Amino acid sequence: MIKIFFNTCYNVKQNIFFSLVFMFVTLATQAQMIRLEPPNWWVGFKNSELQLLVNSSEIGNAIPEINYPGVSISEVHQAHSPNYLFIDLKIDASTVPGTFDIVFRKADGTSVKYEYELKARPKNPEDYIGFNSSDVMYLITPDRFSNGNIKNDIDTDLREQKIDRTDNYARHGGDIRGIINHLDYIDNLGFTAIWPTPMLTNDMNSSSYHGYAMTDFYEVDPRFGTLQDYKELAQKMDARGLKLIMDMVANHCGSEHWWMKDLPFTDWVNQQETFETSGTLRNSNHRRTTNQDTYASKVDKKDMVEGWFVPSMPDLNQRNPFMAKYIIQNNIWWIETLGLAGIRQDTYPYSDKSFMSTWASTIMSEYPNFNIVGEEWSTNPLLVRYWQAGTPNKEGYESHLKSTMDFPMQQNIISALNENEDWATGFVKMYEGLAMDFAYTTPEDILIFADNHDMDRVFTQLHENIANTKMALSYIFLIPRIVQMYYGTEILMQNTAQPDDHGLIRSDFPGGWQDDAVNAFTGLGLSESQADMQDFVSKILNYRKKSKAIHTGKTVHFAPENGIYVLCRVQDDETVVLILNKNEEAKELDLTRFKELNLEGETLKNVVTGATVTWETHLKLTEKGPLLLTTKNEL
Amino acid sequence: MIKIFFNTCYNVKQNIFFSLVFMFVTLATQAQMIRLEPPNWWVGFKNSELQLLVNSSEIGNAIPEINYPGVSISEVHQAHSPNYLFIDLKIDASTVPGTFDIVFRKADGTSVKYEYELKARPKNPEDYIGFNSSDVMYLITPDRFSNGNIKNDIDTDLREQKIDRTDNYARHGGDIRGIINHLDYIDNLGFTAIWPTPMLTNDMNSSSYHGYAMTDFYEVDPRFGTLQDYKELAQKMDARGLKLIMDMVANHCGSEHWWMKDLPFTDWVNQQETFETSGTLRNSNHRRTTNQDTYASKVDKKDMVEGWFVPSMPDLNQRNPFMAKYIIQNNIWWIETLGLAGIRQDTYPYSDKSFMSTWASTIMSEYPNFNIVGEEWSTNPLLVRYWQAGTPNKEGYESHLKSTMDFPMQQNIISALNENEDWATGFVKMYEGLAMDFAYTTPEDILIFADNHDMDRVFTQLHENIANTKMALSYIFLIPRIVQMYYGTEILMQNTAQPDDHGLIRSDFPGGWQDDAVNAFTGLGLSESQADMQDFVSKILNYRKKSKAIHTGKTVHFAPENGIYVLCRVQDDETVVLILNKNEEAKELDLTRFKELNLEGETLKNVVTGATVTWETHLKLTEKGPLLLTTKNEL
Repeated sequence: MIKIFFNTCYNVKQNIFFSLVFMFVTLATQAQMIRLEPPNWWVGFKNSELQLLVNSSEIGNAIPEINYPGVSISEVHQAHSPNYLFIDLKIDASTVPGTFDIVFRKADGTSVKYEYELKARPKNPEDYIGFNSSDVMYLITPDRFSNGNIKNDIDTDLREQKIDRTDNYARHGGDIRGIINHLDYIDNLGFTAIWPTPMLTNDMNSSSYHGYAMTDFYEVDPRFGTLQDYKELAQKMDARGLKLIMDMVANHCGSEHWWMKDLPFTDWVNQQETFETSGTLRNSNHRRTTNQDTYASKVDKKDMVEGWFVPSMPDLNQRNPFMAKYIIQNNIWWIETLGLAGIRQDTYPYSDKSFMSTWASTIMSEYPNFNIVGEEWSTNPLLVRYWQAGTPNKEGYESHLKSTMDFPMQQNIISALNENEDWATGFVKMYEGLAMDFAYTTPEDILIFADNHDMDRVFTQLHENIANTKMALSYIFLIPRIVQMYYGTEILMQNTAQPDDHGLIRSDFPGGWQDDAVNAFTGLGLSESQADMQDFVSKILNYRKKSKAIHTGKTVHFAPENGIYVLCRVQDDETVVLILNKNEEAKELDLTRFKELNLEGETLKNVVTGATVTWETHLKLTEKGPLLLTTKNEL
Repeated sequence: MIKIFFNTCYNVKQNIFFSLVFMFVTLATQAQMIRLEPPNWWVGFKNSELQLLVNSSEIGNAIPEINYPGVSISEVHQAHSPNYLFIDLKIDASTVPGTFDIVFRKADGTSVKYEYELKARPKNPEDYIGFNSSDVMYLITPDRFSNGNIKNDIDTDLREQKIDRTDNYARHGGDIRGIINHLDYIDNLGFTAIWPTPMLTNDMNSSSYHGYAMTDFYEVDPRFGTLQDYKELAQKMDARGLKLIMDMVANHCGSEHWWMKDLPFTDWVNQQETFETSGTLRNSNHRRTTNQDTYASKVDKKDMVEGWFVPSMPDLNQRNPFMAKYIIQNNIWWIETLGLAGIRQDTYPYSDKSFMSTWASTIMSEYPNFNIVGEEWSTNPLLVRYWQAGTPNKEGYESHLKSTMDFPMQQNIISALNENEDWATGFVKMYEGLAMDFAYTTPEDILIFADNHDMDRVFTQLHENIANTKMALSYIFLIPRIVQMYYGTEILMQNTAQPDDHGLIRSDFPGGWQDDAVNAFTGLGLSESQADMQDFVSKILNYRKKSKAIHTGKTVHFAPENGIYVLCRVQDDETVVLILNKNEEAKELDLTRFKELNLEGETLKNVVTGATVTWETHLKLTEKGPLLLTTKNEL
């Protein structure tokens, strides 16, 4: 049975113009281009509803029909543009997966059809295990990591056809195949997850390499590869136990997005009227505290959420319920298609926060063990806290967002290491910063990082000081957090020549291109300190991979004294002790202060060198840097 | 009926030595010095229990008797020292106020007696109205404000007998009479409350002027005056509607406190054994985050709470239940004796936090409309938040402390005004700082200040810039807070010559001493800018005194733009607009952005100059500084 309703648009006032005009339908039965999204769906979600976006010339007045057991049309919505239809389907739990036609009958008696597939779900919803504090993710800018397929470097159907490795803002040719080719490298380093920045089509005129200006939310950018490649990456990672995280953008699209030429509704994007009249669009005021501030003026709140992130990125209006469904379904489509272990949500606080709560709760309700991390670039723990699921916010806001980003601790770590030790400077910034964990619902679900694709390389932030870089990394690997490291940090990649130059920050990984003089995958041409850092990261991460103490153990730290800061993780008979030491000259550390660790007489192993040491009254620290000791010889 | 029990000390192990020793009692019936605290009490508290501390030579084995209807002894506790007794009384609600003897019968058959008074409570507990957001308090360092009685400048019974106005750390002679003499001045300036720093006896060898090293918790320092003077101050303030706040110290006493020579228990103060063996006492590590930090080591927590604030201030052990009762009863005694409107608790996070919660809840339960502000010197709102009553702390800690101190906003204001305007500097620090109010249970109960007795004078902090000082003050007068201003800020007192010199910060108020060349009370000899600032403060505070919008109105502020930051308070038909402007040259402020204030066409009055202006499309700002406008001609 097919139930058909033609509903007025949800916004009657705006639709009045379209309703008054009778349109001659000129659809042909054959050869009519129909874009229908999501391009397929699955049987067996908790939510049995699905809303299809149909885009085709003059499709607005067609009547859709479906004849498939278990599938019914519950509502059909016209849009403001005559070239869209939104069809609400109800899919019974008992529906047998398969394909069927959606037939669009037009006023002139002709019809077009679209073959639609409902698949069986590949795995149980509980088996989408999100990233957690046992994970360390490798953040990759795919265009800059490795060019595994030189044939897809340029796509003549797309706008930006330039490939130029000497131009920091042009495409360099890195792709999905490049990542697939080097899973061994990433795995051996001890990483357990990969977060590639977005790989969907960015058919923009320039700077399309970064991927955050999507022009199609359902298509892999051909210059990165095909959907099949993306699936292969997912499958090969899964086979190794590596988790795949997808970088999503709910706030905006690229200005060349296909729908920008013919928007379904008059409020599909924010400031749409200004956009359509070529008026002056307002950028976001970027005053993100308006999301929390109970004193914020209405005008500032509006400018924050409805302003465009940048002029080339139209700001999606998630208060339009069709847009809201579109984003949620799109994300579920990718989770199901790739078997994701998580989502990283870009520019998180710029979207409508009420929608973002619905978005996260809908996804988490379908995938109870999944994880999502939202990007709030704030060094204020009160904001990081506000967005995390379970925080008892005074206004009652519940984000359903399990993971937030630890920009506060990132900054504390950099300041602590760059500053001289004094009462209120140096290590105390890390010590008192980490103390703020008392205010987080689940600090272990927060993502820590030494740097990312939007800030100076950590080696640059730390003025190319190797001991400090090692202290920063060992600390983020040890504190109760989910960890992220940016590709190339293991070989001391830097952007010192031009701080804050995003193109330079995202430099090519040496060895990612054929004939590169240096090859970090094989070690060819690496300097001694690069190879040493690679080994350092690998030793700690391979220990961390199996360390219950680091994954879920108790944390104890001691107020910094005399340029030394000690932090421990303890679970059962595993105690891991990290001693950060800023003293250049040799130093005897009095161990009596650490009596509560119960380590007297124990033999501890240096995780990096493998050497052993006995915990007596004193410990000799011979050089500046981290010393990572464990009570476990083998895990 | 008198019930007498001799209890073993609560700490049996520590008492064993005393229990084994039989002591010959040598008390004489006549002329024996008995110190008994509290020196009197009242009938009619919710808590009908009272614990008396009795200190007298060999009183420990005496048996106390009371014969007064409604009063019974429920328990008698020996201490570790033979010279103390702690007597638990139960005072029935129906007890008639009056005096009675406490008779101490000794083993040798002799006895001594002490006349004790139970008074009627002077007013209803509900009528102790604490300071709140309608209040602006004048913080005074009494030794430095005005010398009203030159006869009490030196007390030959006390250790420090030096009086020297040229020495920043000596006593200068200011006293209670000096404050009483100038209540007109304070009242006329528009203040509604006075917080004098402590005025109890500090019989220390040096620097006793500041008052924070109490050597007797029940005695007014004779150099400040008598208990009668203090009562007169309280009564005269009350007659004018001025609220009196008392500065209390629960964390420590002065090293010359009378009990330090013969401590009642072996754990009366922290590190007592070290003290008694002349060992090296540990200072507090001052790492206050250990109070919240779930990762803090035990050793650091102990060092924080049990370390001494400074070597001259023995750290009281509030975990000793007799000490706990002593502090609570002492504070109630002062509230009742002086009719206080509030307490300011010094070094709040250094005391045992579990005790501090009991302390505040006990006081607030006796005086439901009272207020207490605790000093946590932290610029981190998470800590300010943690200590405020009603905050849903994850660990469940509830402080019962209604008011905390806004060190974060104080710092934001100073930074904002000293910095150049840019994306992340300047006014945005105030704007984004105030936005954090979303995280406070009741931001209006937090105390804001431009400076205090422990930090550089605000005029010094702002590099003696008058426009910036006016902006700082008008802002703290306007935001939803309880306000505190340090004496002399109204005449631009500064300590620029020696930043961080506490003695200099607490300079003499001109006119407070006979024959002062300048007299700020009369205006004699003030510079034009000093007189102007005095007028500025007076105009705003006298407006604020009656302004419902400022006391309890809605707050709206607008993200700073072009060096201008606008903040408003609104209640009913009263809208108060504060425009802070950093532009030196004249500027037209476009008012269309402020449409939501609904001020179009309204005539507003300049609170400081009395001039009027009509709210049209633009407002001309002629000079750098604050512009405070109101829709109300009269309040």
